[in-house]
Amino acid sequence: MGPKRGFLERLEAGETIIGDGGFVFALEKRGYVKAGPWTPEATVENPEAVRQLHREFLRAGSDVMQTFTFYASDDKLQNRGNEASKKFGCAAINEAACDLAREVADEGDALVAGGVCQTPTYLSGKGKEACQAEFQKQVDVFIKKDVDFIIAEYYEHVEEAVWAVELLKKTGKPIAASLCIGPEGDMHGVSAGDCAVRLAEAGADCIGVNCHYGPIKSLETMRLMKAGLDAAGYKKHLMIQPLGYHTPDCGKQGFIDLPEFPFGLEPRICTRWDMHKYAREAYDMGIRFIGGCCGFEPYHIRALSEELAKERGKFPKGSEKHGLWGDGLRQHTKPWVRSRARRDYWEKLNPSSGRPFSASCSKPDNWGITAGHDYLKQHAEDTSDKELKEIMEVAQSR
Amino acid sequence: MGPKRGFLERLEAGETIIGDGGFVFALEKRGYVKAGPWTPEATVENPEAVRQLHREFLRAGSDVMQTFTFYASDDKLQNRGNEASKKFGCAAINEAACDLAREVADEGDALVAGGVCQTPTYLSGKGKEACQAEFQKQVDVFIKKDVDFIIAEYYEHVEEAVWAVELLKKTGKPIAASLCIGPEGDMHGVSAGDCAVRLAEAGADCIGVNCHYGPIKSLETMRLMKAGLDAAGYKKHLMIQPLGYHTPDCGKQGFIDLPEFPFGLEPRICTRWDMHKYAREAYDMGIRFIGGCCGFEPYHIRALSEELAKERGKFPKGSEKHGLWGDGLRQHTKPWVRSRARRDYWEKLNPSSGRPFSASCSKPDNWGITAGHDYLKQHAEDTSDKELKEIMEVAQSR
Amino acid sequence: MGPKRGFLERLEAGETIIGDGGFVFALEKRGYVKAGPWTPEATVENPEAVRQLHREFLRAGSDVMQTFTFYASDDKLQNRGNEASKKFGCAAINEAACDLAREVADEGDALVAGGVCQTPTYLSGKGKEACQAEFQKQVDVFIKKDVDFIIAEYYEHVEEAVWAVELLKKTGKPIAASLCIGPEGDMHGVSAGDCAVRLAEAGADCIGVNCHYGPIKSLETMRLMKAGLDAAGYKKHLMIQPLGYHTPDCGKQGFIDLPEFPFGLEPRICTRWDMHKYAREAYDMGIRFIGGCCGFEPYHIRALSEELAKERGKFPKGSEKHGLWGDGLRQHTKPWVRSRARRDYWEKLNPSSGRPFSASCSKPDNWGITAGHDYLKQHAEDTSDKELKEIMEVAQSR
Amino acid sequence: MGPKRGFLERLEAGETIIGDGGFVFALEKRGYVKAGPWTPEATVENPEAVRQLHREFLRAGSDVMQTFTFYASDDKLQNRGNEASKKFGCAAINEAACDLAREVADEGDALVAGGVCQTPTYLSGKGKEACQAEFQKQVDVFIKKDVDFIIAEYYEHVEEAVWAVELLKKTGKPIAASLCIGPEGDMHGVSAGDCAVRLAEAGADCIGVNCHYGPIKSLETMRLMKAGLDAAGYKKHLMIQPLGYHTPDCGKQGFIDLPEFPFGLEPRICTRWDMHKYAREAYDMGIRFIGGCCGFEPYHIRALSEELAKERGKFPKGSEKHGLWGDGLRQHTKPWVRSRARRDYWEKLNPSSGRPFSASCSKPDNWGITAGHDYLKQHAEDTSDKELKEIMEVAQSR
Repeated sequence: MGPKRGFLERLEAGETIIGDGGFVFALEKRGYVKAGPWTPEATVENPEAVRQLHREFLRAGSDVMQTFTFYASDDKLQNRGNEASKKFGCAAINEAACDLAREVADEGDALVAGGVCQTPTYLSGKGKEACQAEFQKQVDVFIKKDVDFIIAEYYEHVEEAVWAVELLKKTGKPIAASLCIGPEGDMHGVSAGDCAVRLAEAGADCIGVNCHYGPIKSLETMRLMKAGLDAAGYKKHLMIQPLGYHTPDCGKQGFIDLPEFPFGLEPRICTRWDMHKYAREAYDMGIRFIGGCCGFEPYHIRALSEELAKERGKFPKGSEKHGLWGDGLRQHTKPWVRSRARRDYWEKLNPSSGRPFSASCSKPDNWGITAGHDYLKQHAEDTSDKELKEIMEVAQSR
Repeated sequence: MGPKRGFLERLEAGETIIGDGGFVFALEKRGYVKAGPWTPEATVENPEAVRQLHREFLRAGSDVMQTFTFYASDDKLQNRGNEASKKFGCAAINEAACDLAREVADEGDALVAGGVCQTPTYLSGKGKEACQAEFQKQVDVFIKKDVDFIIAEYYEHVEEAVWAVELLKKTGKPIAASLCIGPEGDMHGVSAGDCAVRLAEAGADCIGVNCHYGPIKSLETMRLMKAGLDAAGYKKHLMIQPLGYHTPDCGKQGFIDLPEFPFGLEPRICTRWDMHKYAREAYDMGIRFIGGCCGFEPYHIRALSEELAKERGKFPKGSEKHGLWGDGLRQHTKPWVRSRARRDYWEKLNPSSGRPFSASCSKPDNWGITAGHDYLKQHAEDTSDKELKEIMEVAQSR
Repeated sequence: MGPKRGFLERLEAGETIIGDGGFVFALEKRGYVKAGPWTPEATVENPEAVRQLHREFLRAGSDVMQTFTFYASDDKLQNRGNEASKKFGCAAINEAACDLAREVADEGDALVAGGVCQTPTYLSGKGKEACQAEFQKQVDVFIKKDVDFIIAEYYEHVEEAVWAVELLKKTGKPIAASLCIGPEGDMHGVSAGDCAVRLAEAGADCIGVNCHYGPIKSLETMRLMKAGLDAAGYKKHLMIQPLGYHTPDCGKQGFIDLPEFPFGLEPRICTRWDMHKYAREAYDMGIRFIGGCCGFEPYHIRALSEELAKERGKFPKGSEKHGLWGDGLRQHTKPWVRSRARRDYWEKLNPSSGRPFSASCSKPDNWGITAGHDYLKQHAEDTSDKELKEIMEVAQSR
Repeated sequence: MGPKRGFLERLEAGETIIGDGGFVFALEKRGYVKAGPWTPEATVENPEAVRQLHREFLRAGSDVMQTFTFYASDDKLQNRGNEASKKFGCAAINEAACDLAREVADEGDALVAGGVCQTPTYLSGKGKEACQAEFQKQVDVFIKKDVDFIIAEYYEHVEEAVWAVELLKKTGKPIAASLCIGPEGDMHGVSAGDCAVRLAEAGADCIGVNCHYGPIKSLETMRLMKAGLDAAGYKKHLMIQPLGYHTPDCGKQGFIDLPEFPFGLEPRICTRWDMHKYAREAYDMGIRFIGGCCGFEPYHIRALSEELAKERGKFPKGSEKHGLWGDGLRQHTKPWVRSRARRDYWEKLNPSSGRPFSASCSKPDNWGITAGHDYLKQHAEDTSDKELKEIMEVAQSR
């Protein structure tokens, strides 16, 4: 095998790139990441667990190993009692993430993508320079470790994403940029279409959304972003990495606002068949970097790879252990389960919740506060009981 | 640390033993096990994936590492086109499983339990001797590898379970026995209470249920089994390892009969908070070997360990990355999420399904055929298209 | 037309008698009955409204006009601030009810059935003599007005029903007796089968259930009652008059315990197609007096008549305005609605709730208190605020 | 009591006018109207049933008695095998309707409103002159019978509504106009705001929506219509008469497209408490003619009157039999039901469906064909089996 072909090289050749799934949620369930701070120091503390998850995504067909550097900016690592910055250091955490991603990427034909995301610095209203200084600390590591490209992802405010892209462009690496917005646009009221245009103006090579909404809503947002780019005359590559959850009831802030976030989302988990539909729709819309975010497990990624196997000319390694459209059930002991070994059955299945006392939709919190609000500011101390009591009262009075 | 204390020693001292979760479903989602044959040869093919899952359960508080030998009897390994018997051999698969379980068990204070389960031989109506011959092949490995105790689990017919226990008793190891039955009893119409008594008569040291039903229904079954044992004057240890799914609508055959089995069960997945309730109820009923089966992920097992942390005098290692009752959310950026950092919130949460087009209950298939029926017989050949068409017609005419 | 054939004459000839629907709930929605006291004085205050409802049931195929004398016993008419006894008098209310029922019955071939039901006197623990004295006041009117037969209905305690039947037998009229119990039996723990036997022993000619549960649960109860009668060697006519609501989640006290009772039951209302299934199952079980109770509107009764039209040799008059199985939709303007003009469509329809924020089942209150409990005692005064506060506290602490 | 004050007189004095509920659905359930042709000849055939329903609405607080002349245009009375035109005559049906409305209106202080609605002539694409000729036949009766005002209602195409309003204006009577559109606008793609403006331009005195959507969606449409009128500088009175059903899943054609239409809508029926919220929101938006359409029963109208009792300075007569916010339950026998005698309980109730096998939302048919399409054309003959088969095939292939 010669040298790997690059991110843009692949996209420009019309190939479909399969992304990976969500690390923080998957590793939280496996016991290595703490919900709340979403501790990226797992790369240092439990590298074997991070490596294993990379391998599962590679096996499922992922062409991209994203460094597990989500919320690994230095300001986040010292927010609200987080001691990771002091204990491990921002550089060490990011370096370990790059090494793990590279190790597994080289077990296949995958690319390594460094990742930066929104910062407490921005939410605290400290401005462009301060934000870019946080990004720079991570980018220094990405350059040192020579990642293949960089993803600026999970931005609720296009303004901060633009600042990130502008900085990242200086590296000379290909830059992908995705916002965690829905059809209503960003938290400052910029429409989805305009958000896409601003990212294009800033120089992003590939544009789209990730996280905060499930496949259906994210595809809806992508339609708007694509329309915005088309109207402005931009030809950009498109990307999408949605949640692995159903979110028909989400408002502007996405799944963060759902009462089930983050410990009661189970009933919303998508099936592999939902993912087939999602992959097909994304492909048909012209998106060529298709992956997942929180809630996406390896089998969800495998479903994307299987749906697009013909277009990509290959099945993922993990399909050895997966009969296409349930075909492996031919070997099941029970005849009625064997009778489900067919596409028609699974494509039409509308699964029940098993929860007769639960509703299908929730009322999101909809606080609607955004960058600069006092409640969102970074601070080094733990959240105090007094502060907690105060916001509980606000929450309950809504 | 001195020599580990044994299974019965712990139970007799009144300790609560936490079991592990489900390997076949978890490894299927990770890409290493094929649904249908539920390929146990993963122990040989991808030992690193099996080892990692053992480690996650250990970290979550499991005191028992069950060898991943489910459906690893030789007859199953050559059923309906399965080539695992020929390719790897029953002994090699079972040995590798024992080695992996032992390796991880010794990273902590856990015990290794060999596991045998129901056989195609029984469903084919071949009788006691033939069944026991299949069990013996696995037991030989367990003795060679010196497991700490043996679990006879996942039996739909108490008759076959009794045959298994009788054989296993000859090893001199402590024997746990669990059926995959619900409140309606076994597939031959033996009541849950009578099933328990027959296992006791056969010499099982610990008696209960696993798989086929979620926590609520399984607890209901345990109440009946306990009442049966009490009425018959037996004092036996009790065990329970239910599904990690909600199954209010299951009939006699359990979740196998649900239209969602096995690829559309996502909306039924239990939350960690469901597991707290389950652990408490099981404990209060006097059950002291409490674990999980299919659908139980490491974080579910951790929830059992956390609920019973006071009784057990310890938290699992994995709790380092889990604020009790959501306490870690104090470090979340959004104030309304911080306001959920409390037991009261999660205990009362009734999560929505996010599926407005789905119902809450399904109609199970209820074919109701049992051991000896032609459709259930083992055969070496693949399921033919003709056979598949025939049973699809049966399925659709119901 | 000669003299009408009697109640028993019809049953003994093997005819199927269609009952009527629920007066208190229907008239409450029309504005003439107050929920709580369920004011039967509508017969005096608004006879035109009561007469019209009788007519609609007659038109729908009802063979029985039940006098609107539910909760028209004298003790009830003076309970908790009710002034109906003083203002109108028990006799006048019951007499007006008889006259209205007779007037409409004679517009067709229907029979008039006087009705008595459970009394506050019983719930207050005042004993047999006091209860029978209350019944006697109503029976005197029924005799004076020469009703065709008498129904003792809506008893939660078989003991009180037996007292009623014993007294009613003295009139020489045919006696039908129905309890408002479910599969769990009466409020004193008498099984459904035993309840039926006791009513048979007391001399009831026709035995069954009414109110408190929807068709499905009521049919389940009837299976148990029938089995009880069969086992005891009784040959009795059977009757059923269930709610027009779905009640899968009801406990022992029936729909009274549902949080939706009585002002939020709308989502549970049965469709006409549910009623077809109910009528068929009741008929197949051998029940020959088939009607409805609370929630049953005229179109529900018409559905019973239409389902059994062949067996009864006639359609109800109201079918002039109802194409069988939706056939009238052939005249609808929209083609896709015309395409629903067929049995197959409506028989398979599983209607959605239109309520994405609601669950499918409720948790019943399950207070479980019964006759003699202080909270159930009759008293003349209004419910005081103090008393209300006390029970609200009990309710909320559960 | 002097002469009644007129429609505009009341509105201009700032009074809130309560409309009535839906006649075709209510009378269908009572057995007097046939679904499909929605037979208005009930006014001739069963005047006592129509009169009684008028009385119930009057008692519930309705200030308007709408003549039961829905779908009583001559072309409709002879469409698809309808023989009402020949048998009774358009004039006789409309005259009887006027007489019944006037008789009951004069039992109180209510106004009589003649009503015209969309015609098969329009759907058949026959043009303005032909449509107005149909309206004229009804209007001639309204003038002869001297109705107080005229409502042009239930138009899916604003064009036809404008033709109606233009004609009606010639009578000199006050004219109210309501479309059966939702937030997406009319069937020709005219936005809700523009629709309102066109009705204003045509001279309608009071503008709004009726039918096709439940209260929530209809209020959403009214917000758009009001915004359109405001932007165009029109000051018009506003009206709203929504369905009594929940319709969150309806598309452009409203509830006609739901698979439950018209015989499976039960689970969607609004509670009285839903109506309190609706009345309050409509009032707060500035709407002063507030009523209901299909699915609205007398108790729903009473709820509107009760919610606005303070603003209107009076309770309806029917409130004699209704404790405000469930207060009558103080007289209930069971203590836990007495504990529900309070606003807080009912306001927060989220009722369950009692249907564990049903979903919350349906997929509408969305055929999307409109005026002029061959399938929508009026013809005198019955729908043939061949035609039915053809559209069933279209329906099933979608």
